[in-house]
Amino acid sequence: MKSDIDALMRARNLDAILIAGGEGYSEVRDYMSNGAHITGGYIVKKLDAEPVLFVSGMETEEAKKSGYQVVGWNELGLMDLYADHDPDTATVLFWEKCLKAAGVDSGTVGLYGRGDINTYVQLFALANQKLDGYQFVGETGRTLFAEAFLTKDEVEIERIKSVADRTNEVVEAAWNYIASHKANDDETVVNEDGEPLTIGMVKRFIRVQLMERGLEDTGMIFAQGRDAGFPHSRGEDAEALKLGQSIVFDLFPRELGGGYHHDMTRTWSIGYATPEVQEAYDDVMTAFDKSLEDFGVGKATHSMQEVVLDYFEGNGHSTGRSDSTANEGYVHSLGHGVGLLIHERPSISHIRREDVWQVGNVVTIEPGLYYPEKGFGVRVEDLFIITENGELISLTSFKKDLVLPLNG
Amino acid sequence: MKSDIDALMRARNLDAILIAGGEGYSEVRDYMSNGAHITGGYIVKKLDAEPVLFVSGMETEEAKKSGYQVVGWNELGLMDLYADHDPDTATVLFWEKCLKAAGVDSGTVGLYGRGDINTYVQLFALANQKLDGYQFVGETGRTLFAEAFLTKDEVEIERIKSVADRTNEVVEAAWNYIASHKANDDETVVNEDGEPLTIGMVKRFIRVQLMERGLEDTGMIFAQGRDAGFPHSRGEDAEALKLGQSIVFDLFPRELGGGYHHDMTRTWSIGYATPEVQEAYDDVMTAFDKSLEDFGVGKATHSMQEVVLDYFEGNGHSTGRSDSTANEGYVHSLGHGVGLLIHERPSISHIRREDVWQVGNVVTIEPGLYYPEKGFGVRVEDLFIITENGELISLTSFKKDLVLPLNG
Repeated sequence: MKSDIDALMRARNLDAILIAGGEGYSEVRDYMSNGAHITGGYIVKKLDAEPVLFVSGMETEEAKKSGYQVVGWNELGLMDLYADHDPDTATVLFWEKCLKAAGVDSGTVGLYGRGDINTYVQLFALANQKLDGYQFVGETGRTLFAEAFLTKDEVEIERIKSVADRTNEVVEAAWNYIASHKANDDETVVNEDGEPLTIGMVKRFIRVQLMERGLEDTGMIFAQGRDAGFPHSRGEDAEALKLGQSIVFDLFPRELGGGYHHDMTRTWSIGYATPEVQEAYDDVMTAFDKSLEDFGVGKATHSMQEVVLDYFEGNGHSTGRSDSTANEGYVHSLGHGVGLLIHERPSISHIRREDVWQVGNVVTIEPGLYYPEKGFGVRVEDLFIITENGELISLTSFKKDLVLPLNG
Repeated sequence: MKSDIDALMRARNLDAILIAGGEGYSEVRDYMSNGAHITGGYIVKKLDAEPVLFVSGMETEEAKKSGYQVVGWNELGLMDLYADHDPDTATVLFWEKCLKAAGVDSGTVGLYGRGDINTYVQLFALANQKLDGYQFVGETGRTLFAEAFLTKDEVEIERIKSVADRTNEVVEAAWNYIASHKANDDETVVNEDGEPLTIGMVKRFIRVQLMERGLEDTGMIFAQGRDAGFPHSRGEDAEALKLGQSIVFDLFPRELGGGYHHDMTRTWSIGYATPEVQEAYDDVMTAFDKSLEDFGVGKATHSMQEVVLDYFEGNGHSTGRSDSTANEGYVHSLGHGVGLLIHERPSISHIRREDVWQVGNVVTIEPGLYYPEKGFGVRVEDLFIITENGELISLTSFKKDLVLPLNG
């Protein structure tokens, strides 16, 4: 968690972190600025010191919301650097000014943030060439921030719980909205004027519900029938809802403008469920329950995925383990960490095997079965936290009913 | 524009482009996939050939919307690479498989896309070390995509015009919404029950209006009084609207889920304007009109900024040219290109001097004056296109009235 950053820096022999990157929202910038919504600039954190924010004069007010020291670019003579040097040299000389202003006179500097790859591979090389006394380094895999994000502190947990509560309300509102309709002879869901209810209309309803609660959609899935059989197909806006089709509804909004997420999925079948969808649903729910039994703090997370793989394979479903090229059956990992990013560590995967359950993890558990050729898919997903008592607790309170009856 | 990409590759001696990058929406991925909303994967474009998309099995359906060839990762044996190699080596060996599958057997490969800097500086070095026959290169400044984005083709212009029309409607709706209120004795704007109208309420109204038109907010500014004096202060949600305060309202939404933007700003003063705000407003409008007179295809864009700098400085305002550390007066550039990114080339700046007006440019013109210590700021911004006839035409039809009268 955030309080581990100095230890994580020490483990990497970093004397400082320099967060750079392009314009726009950035999770790492958010994390290191206490949620100040700066859309550019640099953050330098010296080992065992508070971060310092370096922003354009236009962003100093926003940056001050971090509670940290804020330095305007012009105070450091940015314009003079650009007047005297080519732009790339000016940029890396400005990095040096920021580092020195944060008390970092030399040493190993971890370069983080999100930016244009083509730009930063050049600037990285130039900085290592031009700036005497500094060594800039990158890292892959379980990076400093991936490790920090692994566990959440109390402030983060409270924010995630609040997003969870609001998301559950929105899913309930969506259920009630659909339920308020009726079906015509064609098994199409229609309003009282007989007009079809489309996926686009449902998504718009959901987005407004999210916004009214200070949340924003980040690409929800509302996929029906064959589309539900592709785990990441988002669904077709123009398509009308139909009775007896599986609908995979995966909602993973975040705080408006960037922030913490909640991630949940329900599978609904309006009016009735076909026997094969019901059977797949029952298998998914059994897998869901079995996975929970495997949980234990300190245990490897991949064990839980293997419980689900064993169960599905034993029930005749192909999986990503039994056939890595399979496009049907159980084709993804069981879950992932959730925070400022929608996909964080830990992974619950048979491939990424190094993660272990820890207090402070916030993770999805989301078994699913996909049969696009048979015209359906099923996934059920809750978001869980691991409490200080070592318990795995769901934040996703909304009911797990498959059949959504119409009452319009 | 997009049809220039082969020429832009040739000018850089690139045999291929590899677009990589992290999860989520990416403008370059959008641009090179005809707007398919893939959230990961690679795109390879060989010189003089169509792009090929390499995506996980979960995204093949979405990727096919590009109209280009789509290859699933597993078809190329991704899992075997991860089984046989450390993850970084597996990743760069997979890049090689993608390149070969797109017919690129060797040569210079431009690496593009947006990703974690720490990751890509490592992978870039590793790819150049491990992959015989390929040289991976980055670039800064006026990059291939910055140059391609400089001018828009007909399809792009039509999309931007549609976003412009919808944004103008939303601004009109916001004007009417505010106007439907009244003021209390305190000069606070209130509804018919006497409850204050806050900035947060106005922003929520605007976001819903955007969404109903298939647009999404990307961080609008609605900043009043002293906040309006900081160009990028977004405004305080809890603050009630007041009579006689300058409000800078900068709205720059994009197509829902990522896509083309429109960018416009109006300054409003509810009920009445103070003389000093009116005077600054008149200066800004004069600067706006003078800047348009300087336009000509083939002319350097910085000339237009200099016209505005000359005018403001002549009228006693400090500028970023007369004092680069100034926080009041005219403290930013006159405008910028707009497209998939909110800030593109050309720049209308006295610092970035290399851009020249071209048919197909889509640019903002946005003079402003900022006096935070005096408690106000003013900015007026339209989005312009340069037509095939070489005319500079505004897409921002909404009126430029300063005073917004209440009629509630």
